[in-house]
Amino acid sequence: MPIAEQVKNALSSSSMIRRMFEEGIQLKKIHGADNVFDFSLGNPDIDPPKTFHDVFVKLAQEDERGSHGYMPNAGYQYVREILAKKVSREQNVNIDGSHIVMAAGAAGGLNTVFRTICNPGDEIIVTRPFFMEYRAYAANMNAKLVEVDALENFNPDINAIANALSEKTAAVLINSPNNPTGKIYPSSVLDALSSLLTEHGKKTGRFPYLVSDEPYRDIAYTCDVPPVLSCYSESIVVSSYSKSLSLPGERIGYIAVSPLISDRDDLVNGLIYCTRVLGFVNAPALMQRIVASLTEERVDVSIYARRREAFIKILNEAGIEYINPEGAFYLFCKAPAKRKGRNEKRVNEIDDKAFTEHLKKFLILGVPGSSFGKPGWLRFAYCVDEKIISASGNAFKTAMENW
Amino acid sequence: MPIAEQVKNALSSSSMIRRMFEEGIQLKKIHGADNVFDFSLGNPDIDPPKTFHDVFVKLAQEDERGSHGYMPNAGYQYVREILAKKVSREQNVNIDGSHIVMAAGAAGGLNTVFRTICNPGDEIIVTRPFFMEYRAYAANMNAKLVEVDALENFNPDINAIANALSEKTAAVLINSPNNPTGKIYPSSVLDALSSLLTEHGKKTGRFPYLVSDEPYRDIAYTCDVPPVLSCYSESIVVSSYSKSLSLPGERIGYIAVSPLISDRDDLVNGLIYCTRVLGFVNAPALMQRIVASLTEERVDVSIYARRREAFIKILNEAGIEYINPEGAFYLFCKAPAKRKGRNEKRVNEIDDKAFTEHLKKFLILGVPGSSFGKPGWLRFAYCVDEKIISASGNAFKTAMENW
Repeated sequence: MPIAEQVKNALSSSSMIRRMFEEGIQLKKIHGADNVFDFSLGNPDIDPPKTFHDVFVKLAQEDERGSHGYMPNAGYQYVREILAKKVSREQNVNIDGSHIVMAAGAAGGLNTVFRTICNPGDEIIVTRPFFMEYRAYAANMNAKLVEVDALENFNPDINAIANALSEKTAAVLINSPNNPTGKIYPSSVLDALSSLLTEHGKKTGRFPYLVSDEPYRDIAYTCDVPPVLSCYSESIVVSSYSKSLSLPGERIGYIAVSPLISDRDDLVNGLIYCTRVLGFVNAPALMQRIVASLTEERVDVSIYARRREAFIKILNEAGIEYINPEGAFYLFCKAPAKRKGRNEKRVNEIDDKAFTEHLKKFLILGVPGSSFGKPGWLRFAYCVDEKIISASGNAFKTAMENW
Repeated sequence: MPIAEQVKNALSSSSMIRRMFEEGIQLKKIHGADNVFDFSLGNPDIDPPKTFHDVFVKLAQEDERGSHGYMPNAGYQYVREILAKKVSREQNVNIDGSHIVMAAGAAGGLNTVFRTICNPGDEIIVTRPFFMEYRAYAANMNAKLVEVDALENFNPDINAIANALSEKTAAVLINSPNNPTGKIYPSSVLDALSSLLTEHGKKTGRFPYLVSDEPYRDIAYTCDVPPVLSCYSESIVVSSYSKSLSLPGERIGYIAVSPLISDRDDLVNGLIYCTRVLGFVNAPALMQRIVASLTEERVDVSIYARRREAFIKILNEAGIEYINPEGAFYLFCKAPAKRKGRNEKRVNEIDDKAFTEHLKKFLILGVPGSSFGKPGWLRFAYCVDEKIISASGNAFKTAMENW
């Protein structure tokens, strides 16, 4: 029987990131894992910190009675309290457990937030390029993702957001450090956003939420990631341990709300209710207990920093332009123009999809910028072994020579 | 700022089961855990089998590289293959891994199924009484739950379902062993349902899916639970390890589709896509690997059988009528009529909510039948320590004397 129309349509334009990831698995079977340069998926290859392993073994050995059972839908109260302290430090606020709802990763948290705050037909404004899953999350709630272009330096364009605001705006969604650009939004940008949304709220009576998707907060090279919760009263942070502890398959994260947020009881109760009825019920029990023991821990970011350098060197040598990433583990690159013939000058035919396909012939997997709303660019994830990165140098060079 | 209207409305009529569970936690703090007879939530108190612990410790000690990372959204391929064998045996079919999608528990699986098969405005038929969360799951997809009464013996009423079928019917949803009645639907009922849906499909061109929610399949006392997948081509089973391995907090389950199902590629790809974009991304990685090692395992059902006997004895002595449960771990009871005065005859004022409140004074927590679409009844979950069940005898008697 035919499935839902919206889902059927989505299947035909399914995630290029995931398609590349699954193609990569196939290519590795054929050519051997070391010979495929798979920079498609943000699937961290760094091990979780040693302390993760210790806590994991300890909890397994204890295997306390009832520890795999239900707890309140918001999560274990003691876990919420511990995370509130961590978030308070990071976000320069003073919140307690009642401001935290445990979530099944950031993807689960974002769906929960959108379900809680969006009436059908509401709008969520996002800056392009962006993680394309947001579009599907909004569609789940019959909300509309309103996409506005970033500035040339890939910071949000406050004027463009101002023009996009309407009485239907439920939220502005930001993501810093950014996927795919690696940009960290400076506090000046957050302040400007806060002023804009406050002014809009005063004018219309509806203060849009500022929803900050922050799974990469701990992966920062050039500066600390400025706080959001202390910057605007109606702000909500969604985060996860997928990157900071390398646990993306375990689906563990949280939602944190500003201490100044209005209608807080309704909002938090709504988040808890939506966690339940969207089918998450609660964030996985064991992982809640593990991350509560590891609030001071994170993966060794210096490894990503070294990889970033190694990858940049290769791109420089191959003559591919990129944005220097301040955080996360992506290099967002300009798809180079194609040469008409082997010795001709490059012409202005920038096609990120064609270039991605071209790279695949050399067993290099990236994701076209079109998949982030930014044609003409492409993304490489460098959360892979340095030896894969180094070994890709020749493939990149040959690919460029043949483009 | 105001949250979504639908969510705000839902908050005011929030889950009585969950409210009772959370009230129970408070009452236990005041009166001590042993003095509160908390039969509110289906939160299994039996430990997972010893083999669970062994596999858990083994996987923690090995903590294989990359084992907490992403895998394909459908789950690990080897886990899907193993579960396909288990489901093939249980459902009397021959399916492989491509018929299985790993899910974040049955609640996650049901949301995924409904999102995949329902266009907005579509209808899902369910037999009353039923697990009230279904209503919220349907609402998530803008589908409508069409509720029809069960027969007096609590089997589905095939005629009532026939009358409820329309061209908008996306699915008929069944749940056997049933929550709250403990009923196991006999194969004669499944056959009748299959004939009805086949006939309806031939007439209208739309064959409704038969969605079977089966988290209690392994908790059966009187007979094996008849298979569904071999009974009707357009059938989908959703199950979990919340009850069979006592892991409700870990959110691990799966979706299995009939080998004869039409448009299978679209359906399974749709299920995988919806697993991803609803924010589950994938079922928790570690638990996938654990349950794949435990397909022959289940909790010791004889413990539930003993508790069932103990609880029935208490209800008999207190003079409370009930349906003899064939599976699951619930006793569905008639709310007794109230006496006007201490020595007067009981009068016909049956109020399940008032009786539930009355029981709470004696520290007995149950859930009113109204919360399952069946006023005049109430549900007790007996997945609690036998000593709590035995100790509740006096409280039940006193409560009845004072009703």
